[in-house]
Amino acid sequence: MAQPFRYQRRVEFRDTDAAGIVHFSVFFNYMEEAECALLRELDMNVVMTDAEGSFSFPRVAARCDYRAPLRFGDVTTIDVSVARLGGSSVTYGFDFSLNGQPVAQGEVTAVCCRLNGDAKPDSMPIPSDIAAKLAKLVQ
Amino acid sequence: MAQPFRYQRRVEFRDTDAAGIVHFSVFFNYMEEAECALLRELDMNVVMTDAEGSFSFPRVAARCDYRAPLRFGDVTTIDVSVARLGGSSVTYGFDFSLNGQPVAQGEVTAVCCRLNGDAKPDSMPIPSDIAAKLAKLVQ
Amino acid sequence: MAQPFRYQRRVEFRDTDAAGIVHFSVFFNYMEEAECALLRELDMNVVMTDAEGSFSFPRVAARCDYRAPLRFGDVTTIDVSVARLGGSSVTYGFDFSLNGQPVAQGEVTAVCCRLNGDAKPDSMPIPSDIAAKLAKLVQ
Amino acid sequence: MAQPFRYQRRVEFRDTDAAGIVHFSVFFNYMEEAECALLRELDMNVVMTDAEGSFSFPRVAARCDYRAPLRFGDVTTIDVSVARLGGSSVTYGFDFSLNGQPVAQGEVTAVCCRLNGDAKPDSMPIPSDIAAKLAKLVQ
Repeated sequence: MAQPFRYQRRVEFRDTDAAGIVHFSVFFNYMEEAECALLRELDMNVVMTDAEGSFSFPRVAARCDYRAPLRFGDVTTIDVSVARLGGSSVTYGFDFSLNGQPVAQGEVTAVCCRLNGDAKPDSMPIPSDIAAKLAKLVQ
Repeated sequence: MAQPFRYQRRVEFRDTDAAGIVHFSVFFNYMEEAECALLRELDMNVVMTDAEGSFSFPRVAARCDYRAPLRFGDVTTIDVSVARLGGSSVTYGFDFSLNGQPVAQGEVTAVCCRLNGDAKPDSMPIPSDIAAKLAKLVQ
Repeated sequence: MAQPFRYQRRVEFRDTDAAGIVHFSVFFNYMEEAECALLRELDMNVVMTDAEGSFSFPRVAARCDYRAPLRFGDVTTIDVSVARLGGSSVTYGFDFSLNGQPVAQGEVTAVCCRLNGDAKPDSMPIPSDIAAKLAKLVQ
Repeated sequence: MAQPFRYQRRVEFRDTDAAGIVHFSVFFNYMEEAECALLRELDMNVVMTDAEGSFSFPRVAARCDYRAPLRFGDVTTIDVSVARLGGSSVTYGFDFSLNGQPVAQGEVTAVCCRLNGDAKPDSMPIPSDIAAKLAKLVQ
């Protein structure tokens, strides 16, 4: 079983709201930042190209369960793993913690899609080299 | 069975990203805006007071499934209902559509909590007058 | 002297920060929303086309002076005018108020530019029909 | 003449808009992030305390001139200096560059204020130890 990919994120002032804590919607931005850091680590990107053109991974679902708040100045640890890997979809899992205590647990599901300019993208199988990289993060 | 509460939201330029569509995290902001519009309609607010002090509804879970993109200038219709109503929690459901076509479907679960200043809030039963208002939105 | 264009904006919860007030950066989003509402009123858009292709108004400068805070639930009035109209640039002025009291005063300067795909846009004279519409908002 | 404080910021996907570039309002968030990194370096914070209570630096003005766009994945360099230091106010200057080319130049002016709970804050002289730290960043 592989280690998850670890990302650290400092809470900026704009991430907070009048309740004095990080707004619940901001956790989804943190997830995407952590995912992009993982993609850089794997030498991938949000849009990639192969012999047939461009492809990307649009999101089809996202969720988060919240257990404890984050506040301005906190540096949260986000452990990114692959919760599920299908033929054309990947579900990333994100474990947020602060000083070892659980904060939140989220998931984002993305589907590999051929980009067709302004037309609707078509789902396609995840290329095998990419699937191999992602498979190493399955817990 | 009650009618859901209907809210219209215009997509502003800042809501979009470099993929040319509304960023997936922004749907959670739209949900909260629609929820707050509903609370105003019900003569409620995000923080309320009773004889014992202040109480509020912090979020414990949120999710969204995405079916079609929204773009700058679109005016999406958001139908808000109550998907589940527990003794101390409420789960709002949000159906996003554009010109009658489904766009996204989301949920936010909030727990009624007594606010204790800087200390951790304690969950409490939803006051009966508020529960009665929310019960009318159960589908 | 023309009347400014009036836009009303409700403060949403996500617009606030841990200081309990609207974050200073959010006023620039409000300005853009008010500007877009004005453009709709004038039958314009953020990207327009003429016989030679597409053109738009990228921002080259923005500023805001803050006098009083806005809080969640406030509905601020934004009066949009044209502070300066040049051959290829326009500076919008935004007066924010709350219940008749001044809140903030901002400006955004945009330059009319021919869009050249992925290449750098070139500034161009503001088309005369558009300049005529904007001239009516010069105070 | 002191060196400015240097901060690096990677452009995240949510920072972009449908024009494919970082939204103009986001530069103000980057400025605040860079300022907070400087405050940490100087052992300061956004709210501080002295013998008489709490004080902070609310913003009274902000501006930015834009020269070149930033795109997803760019890592911009932000050089923070003190453009003007008054008895109770400080104006930070922010020079944004990318690969040595100028991108934007911004300023934020903040006034040292005694915090009075829910009442309006009162401006106060910048404490001498803080003024001494900031003075070293005057260019």
